[in-house]
Amino acid sequence: MSSSLQSIILQLQNFWAEKGCLIGQPYYTQVGAGTMNPATFLRVLGPEPWHVAYVEPSVRPDDGRYGENPNRFQLHYQFQVILKPDPGNPVELYLQSLEAIGINPREHDIRLVEDNWEQPAISAWGLGWEIWLDGQEITQFTYFQQVGGQSLDPVSVEITYGLDRILIALNNAAAIWDEPWNDTVKYGDVRRQEEFEHSKYYFEIGNVERLRQMYDLYKAEAEACLAAGLVLPAHDYVLKCSHTFNALDCRGAIGVTERQVFYGQMREMARKVAERYLEQRKELEYPLMKESGEQRAEKSQTVPADYSLITAPCSLLLEIGVEELPASDLDAAIAQLKTAVPGLLDEELRLEHGPVHVSGTPRRLAVLVEALAARQPDRSDLVKGPAAERAFGPDGIPTPAAIGFAKSKGVTPKELQIRDVEGGRYVFALVKQAGRPAAEVLVEALPGLVAGLKFDKSMRWNASKVAFSRPLRWFVALLGETVLPFEYAGLTAGRVSRGLRPYNSPEMLISSADAYFDIIKENGIVLDGSERQALIAEGVQRLAASVGGAAIMPPELLAEVANLVERPMPLLGSFKQEFLSLPEDVLISVMKKHQRYFPLRTVGATGSVAPGQVPPLLPNFVIVRNGDEHALELVRQGNEHVVGARFADAAFFVREDSKHKLEDFRPRLATLIFQKKLGSLLDKSDRMVKLAEALAPMLGLTEPERQQAARATYLSKADLVTRMVVEMTSLQGLMGREYALRSGEAPEVAAAIGEQYLPVPHSRPGLVVALADRLDSLTGLFAAGLAPSGTKDPFGLRRAAIGTVQPLMEHAIDFDLGAAVQASARLQPVEAGPAVQAQVLDFITGRLGVLLKDGGYKYDVVDAVLAGQSSRPAAALKAVRQLAAWVARPDWNTILPAYARCVRITRDQPERFLVRPEAFVEEPERTLYEAVAAQPSAFGGDVDAFLNAVLALIPAINTFFDKVLVMAGDPSMRANRLGLLQRIAALADGVADLSKLEGF
Amino acid sequence: MSSSLQSIILQLQNFWAEKGCLIGQPYYTQVGAGTMNPATFLRVLGPEPWHVAYVEPSVRPDDGRYGENPNRFQLHYQFQVILKPDPGNPVELYLQSLEAIGINPREHDIRLVEDNWEQPAISAWGLGWEIWLDGQEITQFTYFQQVGGQSLDPVSVEITYGLDRILIALNNAAAIWDEPWNDTVKYGDVRRQEEFEHSKYYFEIGNVERLRQMYDLYKAEAEACLAAGLVLPAHDYVLKCSHTFNALDCRGAIGVTERQVFYGQMREMARKVAERYLEQRKELEYPLMKESGEQRAEKSQTVPADYSLITAPCSLLLEIGVEELPASDLDAAIAQLKTAVPGLLDEELRLEHGPVHVSGTPRRLAVLVEALAARQPDRSDLVKGPAAERAFGPDGIPTPAAIGFAKSKGVTPKELQIRDVEGGRYVFALVKQAGRPAAEVLVEALPGLVAGLKFDKSMRWNASKVAFSRPLRWFVALLGETVLPFEYAGLTAGRVSRGLRPYNSPEMLISSADAYFDIIKENGIVLDGSERQALIAEGVQRLAASVGGAAIMPPELLAEVANLVERPMPLLGSFKQEFLSLPEDVLISVMKKHQRYFPLRTVGATGSVAPGQVPPLLPNFVIVRNGDEHALELVRQGNEHVVGARFADAAFFVREDSKHKLEDFRPRLATLIFQKKLGSLLDKSDRMVKLAEALAPMLGLTEPERQQAARATYLSKADLVTRMVVEMTSLQGLMGREYALRSGEAPEVAAAIGEQYLPVPHSRPGLVVALADRLDSLTGLFAAGLAPSGTKDPFGLRRAAIGTVQPLMEHAIDFDLGAAVQASARLQPVEAGPAVQAQVLDFITGRLGVLLKDGGYKYDVVDAVLAGQSSRPAAALKAVRQLAAWVARPDWNTILPAYARCVRITRDQPERFLVRPEAFVEEPERTLYEAVAAQPSAFGGDVDAFLNAVLALIPAINTFFDKVLVMAGDPSMRANRLGLLQRIAALADGVADLSKLEGF
Repeated sequence: MSSSLQSIILQLQNFWAEKGCLIGQPYYTQVGAGTMNPATFLRVLGPEPWHVAYVEPSVRPDDGRYGENPNRFQLHYQFQVILKPDPGNPVELYLQSLEAIGINPREHDIRLVEDNWEQPAISAWGLGWEIWLDGQEITQFTYFQQVGGQSLDPVSVEITYGLDRILIALNNAAAIWDEPWNDTVKYGDVRRQEEFEHSKYYFEIGNVERLRQMYDLYKAEAEACLAAGLVLPAHDYVLKCSHTFNALDCRGAIGVTERQVFYGQMREMARKVAERYLEQRKELEYPLMKESGEQRAEKSQTVPADYSLITAPCSLLLEIGVEELPASDLDAAIAQLKTAVPGLLDEELRLEHGPVHVSGTPRRLAVLVEALAARQPDRSDLVKGPAAERAFGPDGIPTPAAIGFAKSKGVTPKELQIRDVEGGRYVFALVKQAGRPAAEVLVEALPGLVAGLKFDKSMRWNASKVAFSRPLRWFVALLGETVLPFEYAGLTAGRVSRGLRPYNSPEMLISSADAYFDIIKENGIVLDGSERQALIAEGVQRLAASVGGAAIMPPELLAEVANLVERPMPLLGSFKQEFLSLPEDVLISVMKKHQRYFPLRTVGATGSVAPGQVPPLLPNFVIVRNGDEHALELVRQGNEHVVGARFADAAFFVREDSKHKLEDFRPRLATLIFQKKLGSLLDKSDRMVKLAEALAPMLGLTEPERQQAARATYLSKADLVTRMVVEMTSLQGLMGREYALRSGEAPEVAAAIGEQYLPVPHSRPGLVVALADRLDSLTGLFAAGLAPSGTKDPFGLRRAAIGTVQPLMEHAIDFDLGAAVQASARLQPVEAGPAVQAQVLDFITGRLGVLLKDGGYKYDVVDAVLAGQSSRPAAALKAVRQLAAWVARPDWNTILPAYARCVRITRDQPERFLVRPEAFVEEPERTLYEAVAAQPSAFGGDVDAFLNAVLALIPAINTFFDKVLVMAGDPSMRANRLGLLQRIAALADGVADLSKLEGF
Repeated sequence: MSSSLQSIILQLQNFWAEKGCLIGQPYYTQVGAGTMNPATFLRVLGPEPWHVAYVEPSVRPDDGRYGENPNRFQLHYQFQVILKPDPGNPVELYLQSLEAIGINPREHDIRLVEDNWEQPAISAWGLGWEIWLDGQEITQFTYFQQVGGQSLDPVSVEITYGLDRILIALNNAAAIWDEPWNDTVKYGDVRRQEEFEHSKYYFEIGNVERLRQMYDLYKAEAEACLAAGLVLPAHDYVLKCSHTFNALDCRGAIGVTERQVFYGQMREMARKVAERYLEQRKELEYPLMKESGEQRAEKSQTVPADYSLITAPCSLLLEIGVEELPASDLDAAIAQLKTAVPGLLDEELRLEHGPVHVSGTPRRLAVLVEALAARQPDRSDLVKGPAAERAFGPDGIPTPAAIGFAKSKGVTPKELQIRDVEGGRYVFALVKQAGRPAAEVLVEALPGLVAGLKFDKSMRWNASKVAFSRPLRWFVALLGETVLPFEYAGLTAGRVSRGLRPYNSPEMLISSADAYFDIIKENGIVLDGSERQALIAEGVQRLAASVGGAAIMPPELLAEVANLVERPMPLLGSFKQEFLSLPEDVLISVMKKHQRYFPLRTVGATGSVAPGQVPPLLPNFVIVRNGDEHALELVRQGNEHVVGARFADAAFFVREDSKHKLEDFRPRLATLIFQKKLGSLLDKSDRMVKLAEALAPMLGLTEPERQQAARATYLSKADLVTRMVVEMTSLQGLMGREYALRSGEAPEVAAAIGEQYLPVPHSRPGLVVALADRLDSLTGLFAAGLAPSGTKDPFGLRRAAIGTVQPLMEHAIDFDLGAAVQASARLQPVEAGPAVQAQVLDFITGRLGVLLKDGGYKYDVVDAVLAGQSSRPAAALKAVRQLAAWVARPDWNTILPAYARCVRITRDQPERFLVRPEAFVEEPERTLYEAVAAQPSAFGGDVDAFLNAVLALIPAINTFFDKVLVMAGDPSMRANRLGLLQRIAALADGVADLSKLEGF
């Protein structure tokens, strides 16, 4: 019998009620997720325990598909569970709950896929996973770290089931509409018409002006509530703000920069709500803190083994059992252990050992050290004590100082020795340290080894407050056959490991360190990453060949997939031929990025994805299951269903979008606010068109290029209002290119549109579009007072600045940024005067400097050049290259000082002196003058020309300083000499400021 | 173990899921009740079956009590069930569900208390009950008749459990806060702080201006959705309108008349949503109509008994089994049966019979007819046919006409007889009709008997579309021992009756009609209403005496209570002494009106409740349970808890209110809109103060009275913003009086405030307040264009008009309404010119006329007087009385004609002629002139004076007409005579228009 939505809900309620959860109710205002319900948002704050489970119909306007998509809806049913504090086995409880609703882990592929959950609107984040059932995300599993800007202590476990998807998966259904809600009524009977209507409302009918007013009213009410100290009413209005924001967003009414403003407001309100709630709970003296005191786990009472029985070298095993590590964290941990283990053994513990093996899977990190010595060697150290004269009286009797010292070192005063060191006599104690048993020191040291592992993002989960990539759940630590029962993160090491998830993680007793690899292998686990990669690569290639294709298998994808499984099992899936008509970018993006599948091309494929140059895709892909071959067909069907649904979704968008020409979308840019003061994206696009006209000659475009650039700029932003891009923002530009081609635009125009978001566009028309875009943002946002500050750069202006200078450098186009910024400034609807323009240029120069330094140029060289010239990036790059070469010359230490003398003596002179050649009185000054006069007075930024000129002057300069007193008593003589030197110093103008160089 | 909220919910979900209900979820926007969830509001519309159950956290801002009241909250948990169509036993299913959550009917008093559910904001109504558990309303049970203005077919059964109250009742708790939500968390832990905060928000913080704006925005969005044909998005916004309206109301921002405007808007939107939904379902071809065809019950296949076996007279029993009838409907049905049954038997069925007994309880109407004849007597009728000459040829052979007639009457042509009638000869047929068995005719006739019962409000419930007070559920129909299996309302009569609810309505087999009364009695049912009344009265008096008191037992309460039970069991309850400090009106109102308890006074009580004149109340009351003495203590506790909570609620209000003087509330009247054009209630109150000043002299008040009236008018409306009155509107005025006294106002002032809403205030200051109020409303609302139209009178202006004239008549105060309306008109903020004033006066006069006619005066007399004088009600009343006396005089037929001649001959004369006495030429005209001149020319409305004058003129009038030709040829002579008669006719001016009288 097939499952019904209703039976799933009732089963989950019963399951979690039995596990001690309070069963709550959905919230009474529209929320995007169960997280927003105060039963989560507020209750996870503060120290009180809280276990709750409830259904939450969650409203996400932009997921509406008019009821046409089989599993994408503006409203979906979540089942939300909060476990606070972490019960220690939340993943296992979750998997049990799946069994309670009929999901047998042996018949499916259940995967925990890294997911760093973040909800900026409520200033919340956590680490955990998406849980996939045969490729379908069915649950979000998160250890909340922060909510409402507040760090959580204890951490809460949040489990959010997607009930609709579970229903589809359980019934292996193509679409949800015909699945049972209960025995008599179908899901579609209840919900399909409502999906159509709400989609139509959110996408077409909702009145933007009125929704904006609602938002403002809600915000004002929320603030009034906060001012009155009311948490829940304030929270209600924050939720209403959030939903209204979503509705506005769905109408395309939220601009890129405006979004940040909204987020900022909502985050701030959410933070205040959370703060006030914490205060309130404190005032109420935490009424739910009944169990406090019981929370801490009892210290384990294991009796340690008699380590002295270990006398011969034997193997050391450390297995660190974890919940599923992110792929990159697994690599990072292995790399760190490979260094840290030998370091620990050799340097800190002084234990001899044989080879060290480090390997791991998502659920375990394993270290095996062969032939570890049973004991440390003994050791003697001579420890210095007080001065000899203070240690012994004239009669040779030890003073209290000597007695105390001797006692502290465990020797008798008599054993103290007197030695001469550092020009004095001191007493010394010879401290003998017997080598300790390896087991003993390991028990002390292993916690530090684990604690020393660091990750990009780490998390807390229990009262130990230990941070790790994901929760630590067990340790196996064996020296030979002996357990090393170290304690860390609330765990005590033992000999129990756990097997594969699909087999319900059975306990595995590790009899001895040496037996470990065999036991692991017997249990079906492939411990070594490269072995897993090889297995996968072989299987993928074999399956690809079976349908006459070759896999797109970039190494990073292979490495990632290998790190997602403990037992890889590749299998072939397919999708409907008709989806091949979708843009390839879309197909590949969905398969690789979303699903971690290997896409297949017809034979001849190279793995390169440059469009139009490679053989077509096949309607197939390779999945890698975690597990064995049992029930593979079910797993395949599930995965095929998922990818089919995703493609159907994309096809729906592309079909809808393709009903119009790309140009037709452009006017709707008026509904997207770029930034309040700077108008809509249509306004921005119009400015870009004008700016592009100004840039074309500056970039030296040909007439056809100019026309292509103009057209491309005109169309460049139109794809932002297409459904496909609204849905998958990462396809912006790519879809513009695709739709441009479908609309009959010239290929060059389409290409330019497609290149606009590349760091460095390939074509010159593409460069024009990119520069117009970036310069407009920089100038406009600076003028609007929204320059980045500190680490905050909400509008990505640093990236825009880099994207301005880098292509100019790589294309080696001589281009004056100053003129370009000025041109852009004239087009802005807000005042962007010289001060703003200077600020913009300065900011861009800063990025240019960073870029050059990152490119390997020494900071002083870069600074010197940029102090001299900065507004022409290509020229600056050339100058940096040249200067770097000069600085590297062996004679540089003769060149720079000569020039520096000229600069140093003049740089504090406020006055600029005129040189009167007739007034020179001494030969060297006259010689120098003539040498100077023989050189050009400016070099157009060319460092070589400038320094060659300096080089030519060096003999004359040196003679001048040797023979002539610059600071002559006669003021006019002095002025004349200074004037001459000033002229030499000025040769660097527009080239570089050599005073920035080391050694100046 | 005590029940938890969570376990109750899970049990109810399981119970109803097993009964085939779809388990739904609470709605995602704030609703006042589960009814508003589209799973109810929409799904009950149209023909499709629908069975659903869901929890609905229901938000009612004005029920907020800051978490201080033990069982009154701004949010409470409903469990909503919809059964469509009616399954035939919904009450029984409901009672089973109570057992499923642990409520044993034997241990409680479960009562179905009439409730005519109505929700004007969504244009919905239905009939059903509040279900009481030991005096606590725990469920609303309704047969929906109309929703969104649409008649429902089929009817839906709505069961709305109040989960919070059930939790309290199940655990016999004093307050909900410490009751378990689940095993570890208390209800209060989850909800108490939230109650405080939301109460504070709704009562103090919510910004009226912003809430109004939200309402307007929602309304506009709802209309935009409707214009686009979107049902659910529109419905969502209607719900948001509704919630926002509630929030505004809670802030006291909705005026009396404005409320109607809001309701009108919401009703209109709800109606459109419902209409559009019906269209949509039709377009979708009713996807849920799978079971159609199966719905109709199979016609029963009972084989009728052989009625010929009944030969001797025997008793007839008809028991009509119903779900609980309202008390008044029970009386009405019994009264109708007492007439209808003998009528049916005697006239229609011609069945001889002995005494007819009719009695009943809320669940059954019983008719027992003794000694009913077994058969109708035979009967012969002579039926007239065609004329004899057309029936037989000259040869005596019957014509086709005769043959046809004979055939149609079942006789042979030879049997036709010829008789002389009505002056002609006709053929006749003697038609013999054999008497039919009584059983046979009864089976045919009984449906009509039941169908003939009529009620003020009746309802449909099943596919039979029969209407009755409440659903018919069984019929017992026996003639002697024989079942009369008539069919009606989808039921077939049999011999199975049902017993008492507390015993789970066991089936009772009625062996014979004569055994009925005994069986009923054996089963504990008291069938006769007066017997129940006597039992109750005796018990109440006994229990009252047991605490030294006497009961307040008005006959209508006794009669009602006796009609609420089948087996009355009085028991004594008590409440906390401290509540006696509450105003008596509040206490009595709660006990009598809300709870149907008998309040008790200390001995000496009379039952009269005029304040201050009677002995004080006791902290006791008498409850009447339906059932026996089992577990009486539980029932008592439950009831005491309920009344205690209600008093606590009232005490909370009175305490809060009493923190301020009555006068302090007055400024807040500014937040209550009276009507948009007419301003706030403060504006109205200010106008009343000015109008009262003008009225005082017109009503002849003494100076102290004038001062009291002024003060009372000033304070009169202030209680409308007190919490107690906001909560129980029926206490308006009464609480004003109470709070005035507590504020130190003079007793006369307090009394006047208290009297203002009485139809006829006792005191003159009270009369001033009432008149100022009513005249202001009439004049203002007419001027604002809101005069009543047709049957619509949303502002109660008919009542206001009656309330204007009635006290003036009863106090016999001579008072000119015209002047008063003029004074009021001058105070209005809108133009209220002469035309409006005339309209108002006309409207008041219309009500005066109705009142007088209702008072027993003949319409012609009333019309005659009001045509002559109407603006002085007291005078008009006197005039009507006088004229009625004159009309009753035996000589009236000599008086009226004489006067009438004068009027009739002159009334068509457009000109008014001057009388020139010197120009009379004949004696009779001169005599008449002199007689006229001897009488007064005006009578100040005094009919007696006027008609005495007429009486004195009669001889002269009669002589005049006998001797004088009025319409003389000489124009001047004619004019003079007409002028004389015009003068006589004009004597009636300002008195009456006698031409309106019969016989004129």
